[in-house]
Amino acid sequence: MNFTIENAHPNDFEQILAVLKPWNMHHVPSVEMEMIDFDTFFVAKMEGDIVGVSGYKILDETNGKTTLLAVYPEFQGSGVGKALQDKRLEAMHQKGMKTVTTNADRPDIILWYKKHYGYKEVGKLKKLASFGSDDKDSWITLQMDLNAYMLQKAYEEERKIQYIEDNDPFPLSPFPPLIINVCLTGMIPTKRTTRYVPVSVDEIVEDAIKVYDAGARIVHLHARDAEGKPAYHARYYEEMITAIRKERPGLICCATTSGRNFKGIEQRSEVLYLTGKAKPDMASLTLGSLNFITGPSINSLDMVQGLAMIMKEKGIKPELEVFDMGMINAAKYLERHKIIEGKKYFNLLLGNINTAPATIGDLSYMINALPDDSVWAAAGLGGFQLPMNTTAMAAGGHVRVGLEDSIYYDYHRTKLATNVELVERTVRIAKELQREVATPEQVRSMLEI
Amino acid sequence: MNFTIENAHPNDFEQILAVLKPWNMHHVPSVEMEMIDFDTFFVAKMEGDIVGVSGYKILDETNGKTTLLAVYPEFQGSGVGKALQDKRLEAMHQKGMKTVTTNADRPDIILWYKKHYGYKEVGKLKKLASFGSDDKDSWITLQMDLNAYMLQKAYEEERKIQYIEDNDPFPLSPFPPLIINVCLTGMIPTKRTTRYVPVSVDEIVEDAIKVYDAGARIVHLHARDAEGKPAYHARYYEEMITAIRKERPGLICCATTSGRNFKGIEQRSEVLYLTGKAKPDMASLTLGSLNFITGPSINSLDMVQGLAMIMKEKGIKPELEVFDMGMINAAKYLERHKIIEGKKYFNLLLGNINTAPATIGDLSYMINALPDDSVWAAAGLGGFQLPMNTTAMAAGGHVRVGLEDSIYYDYHRTKLATNVELVERTVRIAKELQREVATPEQVRSMLEI
Repeated sequence: MNFTIENAHPNDFEQILAVLKPWNMHHVPSVEMEMIDFDTFFVAKMEGDIVGVSGYKILDETNGKTTLLAVYPEFQGSGVGKALQDKRLEAMHQKGMKTVTTNADRPDIILWYKKHYGYKEVGKLKKLASFGSDDKDSWITLQMDLNAYMLQKAYEEERKIQYIEDNDPFPLSPFPPLIINVCLTGMIPTKRTTRYVPVSVDEIVEDAIKVYDAGARIVHLHARDAEGKPAYHARYYEEMITAIRKERPGLICCATTSGRNFKGIEQRSEVLYLTGKAKPDMASLTLGSLNFITGPSINSLDMVQGLAMIMKEKGIKPELEVFDMGMINAAKYLERHKIIEGKKYFNLLLGNINTAPATIGDLSYMINALPDDSVWAAAGLGGFQLPMNTTAMAAGGHVRVGLEDSIYYDYHRTKLATNVELVERTVRIAKELQREVATPEQVRSMLEI
Repeated sequence: MNFTIENAHPNDFEQILAVLKPWNMHHVPSVEMEMIDFDTFFVAKMEGDIVGVSGYKILDETNGKTTLLAVYPEFQGSGVGKALQDKRLEAMHQKGMKTVTTNADRPDIILWYKKHYGYKEVGKLKKLASFGSDDKDSWITLQMDLNAYMLQKAYEEERKIQYIEDNDPFPLSPFPPLIINVCLTGMIPTKRTTRYVPVSVDEIVEDAIKVYDAGARIVHLHARDAEGKPAYHARYYEEMITAIRKERPGLICCATTSGRNFKGIEQRSEVLYLTGKAKPDMASLTLGSLNFITGPSINSLDMVQGLAMIMKEKGIKPELEVFDMGMINAAKYLERHKIIEGKKYFNLLLGNINTAPATIGDLSYMINALPDDSVWAAAGLGGFQLPMNTTAMAAGGHVRVGLEDSIYYDYHRTKLATNVELVERTVRIAKELQREVATPEQVRSMLEI
């Protein structure tokens, strides 16, 4: 709502009366209300038109009194009335007033004064003529402690904002800047299934640069050997991460510790021992075992804890991969034992044979189960990628997107996607949803990296 | 997945062997497998490359036998293998075969034959040399009834598609064409709060034309009098609907029966008695009472039933307005008593003080509670319009959008929206989500209007 509060001017008189009229408060001057003193009167203007008015009066050195307050009926709840009341309270405060007296007759307005400004009822005053609500023959006299209110005001405002953030749906609780995580390669796609999957170090670095420039802030990395087969060896990651950091230092590098192809903790954790410029910022941590349609993914509790402990020792932030409710349970177990700590980054992956189903209800159920201090992203597998990503953006979450999760651009599998196309689409939808893409610094701060 | 199944050619031999090699099935010819007969052999080609192969052999007048079947490992689950098997079964069927024998050694492949084609185990055959899985020293001999399979095939395919539609999340269950319903005016906005709200008959008709051309298929109409105040009188609707129909006969006209300003059933139902070209296709039916932040909306069960009964008598389809779970309960009560029947169109409106909260979880909870034969749209009030609309589109639902529900384009309330801008944004997001906008004929068929 675009409006300004300005000092009133005698020329405004007719417009002021027009605002007062719907409330039967336009009998000015009258036995009920003396003539407006334009030095202690304000107007709310919208596109040049007066849509609300307020005034006050100095009674003595420490006591003030409000005179008129009105906005056009259609602006009730728009904040115009509140801004007009704040303005006159501020003016009285500056002039040294300690208490403010206000007469009101309508129950909703009396409630409004009590609720927002701490007014209390102190008396009753018979009306002398028709003014305000004609079904009320007297005014309720209210009084507030202006000093106490002004001292509390900033704190109360902050408390209210915090309350909204903690309790109200987006976008009332403001959307956080969007974090896009791109799973570039994965274990499954090969050049034969899609020529767009990056498999060599050079290809992966090239895609990483492109997706960063398109808005991605995390790359989820899987190495491949010279034949394009999944490889756990740290030397591939060293080469990849060093090259990415050289080109795009802001990009957060997340290395997989997947056990889909490699079973031992020595293999799966090799990448976690990289140091210096090759050390990954983050590493994936799948929080349990489950069936994919292509076969089981086995991550015993000991394996999960072992990997998490190394990440903790090395200061590598886990990407907590969750495929169903029980994995959130496992995350809470790890946190209880201080194996994971601080801000937690969850990726919720839905849409395979034994994951939680990729519906908005299941996604919501998972989000609601997350522990405090969590940041979450949603990923959909296969055709579920786009609806889950979009739902996450609408629900205040973040996104994991990329060829690892789906090699197609369309549901009908007629068009192979590239990683950068998937990120560009995500950014376009984010823009429509008025979600800003996070800066690299914001991501590091949000995830405590 | 873009592939074709073609007849094999002798020139393909090397590429065929390459597909067989990962499975140790490339010993052709050998004691296990005679030389390929290219007249009874097929290849699956993707962008010119062979990625799968299959063959068969005629044993006698009614008995056939499969020979080889293989696809590159990365194409497992892609449908290539199934297409190759279907092709050879079809070929044998055309040649009059009644039964098909197949030897297999890998348990997952044996399961696959049983599951998709009704094969049964009929014997065991010792391998003569290394071929296929080297940890299996014999073949399991499988046999299927080709005639029975071919007879059942179409029915089974249909049953499977229906099962997916009934049970699987979108987009696996295909998205229906999108129905956009635009609430152009409502009761609350005035020219002072937004100059873009259409209030006169001419303005409403003009906006209706624009939103239809942008992709809207239903307009939700509220009449205003000459002063811009809400009006229930049928004559306004008569003028409006007749003019809209003249310009855009495909557009579905839905008249409000809101009781926010008018309390009696005579007033609220006046529009339902219009006939001929002025008769509304649909009319709103709020399914209960609730508080808005601006005051209560009162719709007693008698009022709801009374309005619904008139709609039923007049053949006007109700737009079932639901603000919380209990209103779905009330819809079921009406259906049980045959006061509403057939296909039901629900608008789920979230995001005011006493509605269900505008979260994906609450929306999901409502969707899951809807009776069978329901079509649903989601609307968010105020800033919740955009996230609720978007979530609905991702979840296979439809959209209600417009200035009645939110006069702003942005969350920060800096830009006033127009109805057509809101529809255009909806259509852009729908396009990203690969949802087609329904044609007028599709909407009438989907809603049984």
